Amino acid sequence: MIETPYLLFLGDAPDQLAAKVAQGIKDWRPENAVGQFRMDGCKADLGLTDMTLEEAKAAGAKTLVIGVANRGGLISQDWKKVLVAALEEGFDLASGLHNLLRDEPDLVAVAEATGRTLHDVRIPSVKYPIANGVKRTGKRCLAVGTDCSVGKMYTALAMDAEMRKRGMNSTFRATGQTGILITGDGVPLDAVIADFMAGSIEYLTPDNDPDHWDLIEGQGSLFHVSYSGVTMALVHGGQPDALILCHEPTRAHMRGLPGYTPPTLEALRDTALTLARVANPACVVVGISVNTQHMGDEEAKAYLVKVEADMGLPATDPFRYGADKLVDALEAF
Amino acid sequence: MIETPYLLFLGDAPDQLAAKVAQGIKDWRPENAVGQFRMDGCKADLGLTDMTLEEAKAAGAKTLVIGVANRGGLISQDWKKVLVAALEEGFDLASGLHNLLRDEPDLVAVAEATGRTLHDVRIPSVKYPIANGVKRTGKRCLAVGTDCSVGKMYTALAMDAEMRKRGMNSTFRATGQTGILITGDGVPLDAVIADFMAGSIEYLTPDNDPDHWDLIEGQGSLFHVSYSGVTMALVHGGQPDALILCHEPTRAHMRGLPGYTPPTLEALRDTALTLARVANPACVVVGISVNTQHMGDEEAKAYLVKVEADMGLPATDPFRYGADKLVDALEAF
Repeated sequence: MIETPYLLFLGDAPDQLAAKVAQGIKDWRPENAVGQFRMDGCKADLGLTDMTLEEAKAAGAKTLVIGVANRGGLISQDWKKVLVAALEEGFDLASGLHNLLRDEPDLVAVAEATGRTLHDVRIPSVKYPIANGVKRTGKRCLAVGTDCSVGKMYTALAMDAEMRKRGMNSTFRATGQTGILITGDGVPLDAVIADFMAGSIEYLTPDNDPDHWDLIEGQGSLFHVSYSGVTMALVHGGQPDALILCHEPTRAHMRGLPGYTPPTLEALRDTALTLARVANPACVVVGISVNTQHMGDEEAKAYLVKVEADMGLPATDPFRYGADKLVDALEAF
Repeated sequence: MIETPYLLFLGDAPDQLAAKVAQGIKDWRPENAVGQFRMDGCKADLGLTDMTLEEAKAAGAKTLVIGVANRGGLISQDWKKVLVAALEEGFDLASGLHNLLRDEPDLVAVAEATGRTLHDVRIPSVKYPIANGVKRTGKRCLAVGTDCSVGKMYTALAMDAEMRKRGMNSTFRATGQTGILITGDGVPLDAVIADFMAGSIEYLTPDNDPDHWDLIEGQGSLFHVSYSGVTMALVHGGQPDALILCHEPTRAHMRGLPGYTPPTLEALRDTALTLARVANPACVVVGISVNTQHMGDEEAKAYLVKVEADMGLPATDPFRYGADKLVDALEAF
């Protein structure tokens, strides 16, 4: 669990896109973002107040979150100066970089000397159990995709935001690095040891109130041969009551897999439902989230109408047209 | 890759069952088993020549394999004396125990001083790639089960043995600790990091001759919620051309999961085939392996006849009645 709120470190980001983790925090948990810290030459700007470490500390920030991808994959000496100063100022550090904070001896030494914590969310910090399959109380919704990177995290976050707005009882459950930094907690599922994958998801989504919804962040796809095992663990460990199908209709082949054609929504529905019902016989598909970013407005709307008719389920692009339809489906559940 | 042949260490095994890893090596790779090493009080006996370390060394043994489960989960001081002497005698050590050899400082020190290798097959020794899904040459057969522990490893080993006898071109590919110790090589799939599971199986079963069969050891079950992600990675990373369905008909519930009923063979066939065809559209189910250990001879034979009629596929218990039918199916492929 990472202490909030955060000061968002944008470093020397070469462009806005490099700061997408910070952008995600600001978009989805603005209450967690006290301000931004930018170094000379930083080309990203979240529109938050630029703060020194001292100012952020005075404003209540507890953790400096590295919200930017690093150039060359390494934590630079320029960054180090800021990170060391932040530890000395009393901040914890949190990072989703492959270059782990804990692999930097100088950061480890200063963290030990100052009693601060280094959070590397890329790797698990918990010894997860093996899944026991016992039915849990509360309700769970999982987004599954025809492919990787079709908008599963966005869909779950948008639904969670809409549910909070309506006063519904919900929690977004992060299963990837960005989601963990956004919420301060979660399971970095792609880094979990095979035997404990499903157990880590049971751990992440424990017993809850009967009216509570866990919105579980999806990973991979049952149809993506590189990562399907990870998705399978979410389907069985998550015990979803409701599935949302996520799709990007313009993709010529599966991400990173030339020669692999994405499945139809019908194939995803049938396969995901068959597998999900092993863990939860009552599981149903409640809606469809379409990523229409490569379609014009008219084309997108026509596509959604067609999908709704073909599948007999509500369909929307939550980024473009809001998540209401999907939340309506959960509210009516 | 563990150097063969082996001296099989049975330690102070409390009974024959405790030495099942050693038994597996002797049963399936007798040419790898030069002799056995038993300590005072050992209650297991493989019927191999009892040898001192010196005798085994003279007989050509390269590696002392711990072929016995340890009491209390720890490597005892009594064992250590033998293990240290073996290193000093010039043996490598190989173990599938949870208590890793490399976590014992005295063993590490002696191994370093003597230039010997400690093989802990419970954890990966390779940095596996992410699966790329590219079609590989050669043929692959995977055993999938209605449940865990229904005889998938036995089925693949029995088929491999029969294929060797017939002069067919085949390799058993181990994906678990026992299989790795039996063959000296493989992937400990349950200990692989989630993102690399399918890639580890691509690595294990590379391009091969057109007439070559990899017999891939199955793990878990698509219907076992604790381990289904591991199975999924085998189905997609393995790109099987042929599936063998494995079943234990008398099981009241899934292993370790009270309340979970094992699927029918039809359900396993349909689900496994749908998923396998994502990676290999030509995949077919070629036969059924039934574990009839809890049935009388007449009952078992009647069951096999019924399964063959119901499923339209050859069915046998390879332990009881041989693997011929299953190998016939691959030979006719």
